[in-house]
Amino acid sequence: MASDMTLYWGSGSGPCWRTMICLEEKGLSGYTSKLVSFDNREHKSDEVFNINPRGQVPTFKHGNVVVNESLAICLYLENTFKNQGTKLLPDDPAQQALVLQRAVETQPMREKAVLGPLHYFLDTKTKPEDRTEELLEEKKKACHGELQIWEGYLAKLGDGSYIAGKDFTLADVCLWPFLGTLVRVGFDMSRYPHLANYYDLVKGRPSVQATWPPHWKGTPGKDTLKGF
Amino acid sequence: MASDMTLYWGSGSGPCWRTMICLEEKGLSGYTSKLVSFDNREHKSDEVFNINPRGQVPTFKHGNVVVNESLAICLYLENTFKNQGTKLLPDDPAQQALVLQRAVETQPMREKAVLGPLHYFLDTKTKPEDRTEELLEEKKKACHGELQIWEGYLAKLGDGSYIAGKDFTLADVCLWPFLGTLVRVGFDMSRYPHLANYYDLVKGRPSVQATWPPHWKGTPGKDTLKGF
Repeated sequence: MASDMTLYWGSGSGPCWRTMICLEEKGLSGYTSKLVSFDNREHKSDEVFNINPRGQVPTFKHGNVVVNESLAICLYLENTFKNQGTKLLPDDPAQQALVLQRAVETQPMREKAVLGPLHYFLDTKTKPEDRTEELLEEKKKACHGELQIWEGYLAKLGDGSYIAGKDFTLADVCLWPFLGTLVRVGFDMSRYPHLANYYDLVKGRPSVQATWPPHWKGTPGKDTLKGF
Repeated sequence: MASDMTLYWGSGSGPCWRTMICLEEKGLSGYTSKLVSFDNREHKSDEVFNINPRGQVPTFKHGNVVVNESLAICLYLENTFKNQGTKLLPDDPAQQALVLQRAVETQPMREKAVLGPLHYFLDTKTKPEDRTEELLEEKKKACHGELQIWEGYLAKLGDGSYIAGKDFTLADVCLWPFLGTLVRVGFDMSRYPHLANYYDLVKGRPSVQATWPPHWKGTPGKDTLKGF
């Protein structure tokens, strides 16, 4: 139990989802859950700004310790609760190196495969007049180039593997929300068979199911990236 | 000594510089240093691609362990050589949380304060016809908003502090190259007195001096961000 923990989070945010999966995996349920509404800009409230000058979620507090960046929160939880719940960072230096690298590599994954494509269709990020065929091709190339890299990692590891080997680790915690988001917005993952298998494998995990974005439940996904 | 280590790196790359500072701080000099030329696209050579599918530097090898993302390399080196050289990650959970958070926060620092402004002036990133007063103001706002956050962190810590407290840590390793780059391209840091003091403090550090980008030595800086 984690009664001395508070998490500010938004439904559907990849970085928030990471944090929540990590908390579940470490057996840290029971924290004070503060769901903020992005539509009402509650992440820009004084309550959040008081402990996070960026006015972002996740914002996380454990006793007097404040940690606000999702990767930092996950590393902090793993280091602080090393012997509790799922071991997310292996002791073996070579395995640990791989997990850390894949976890950090989810940053280009997020930018190129998720935010790049989604921002192309968002007026506040790409002006309608800038939405050219040329730019679309550029975004597609970056997205598929990135997914090809991850598909290659999984192809080498073999069926049934997690993203850094046979065990579920911090790298999966960091990667999953972005795959979940892609599928939610209509991206056809079947073009990447290893990623599609991986998606199914991780989707069924109790920590993932327990933290599924509430506003996704019982509502149809979007088709923003259908055919992308 | 680190005779079983190889680092592929490029002069002036912030992520490469981080890795090199970290190696120095951990007492791991003597590694095989492979300086690649960005102009000749040597980071896209088979030699790099063979161990890094992204064709990027830093690319790092320790025995049979390959790690390629700068933050992952630094965490790997700190975890593997915990009791050697500078202690870059404190044991105390609260202090460690702060160091991890600041280290990860150097990602928005890089994007908003360094790459955003520099890409505005780069034809391959911003077409000359898109270079409007409105976009310039947007980039300036993002850059200064970001620097104000870091200035605030230092203001709270007091003069002579490193970025996460009284000791030099992983957070400084991750932050420094971006400040170094800003000053190199003409950014006037004196508008941020705490950051300017911090710049002077870290600049003199032996690990930073030993790894100063070779092509910066004896050549004048640029004035790309003069008056930005």
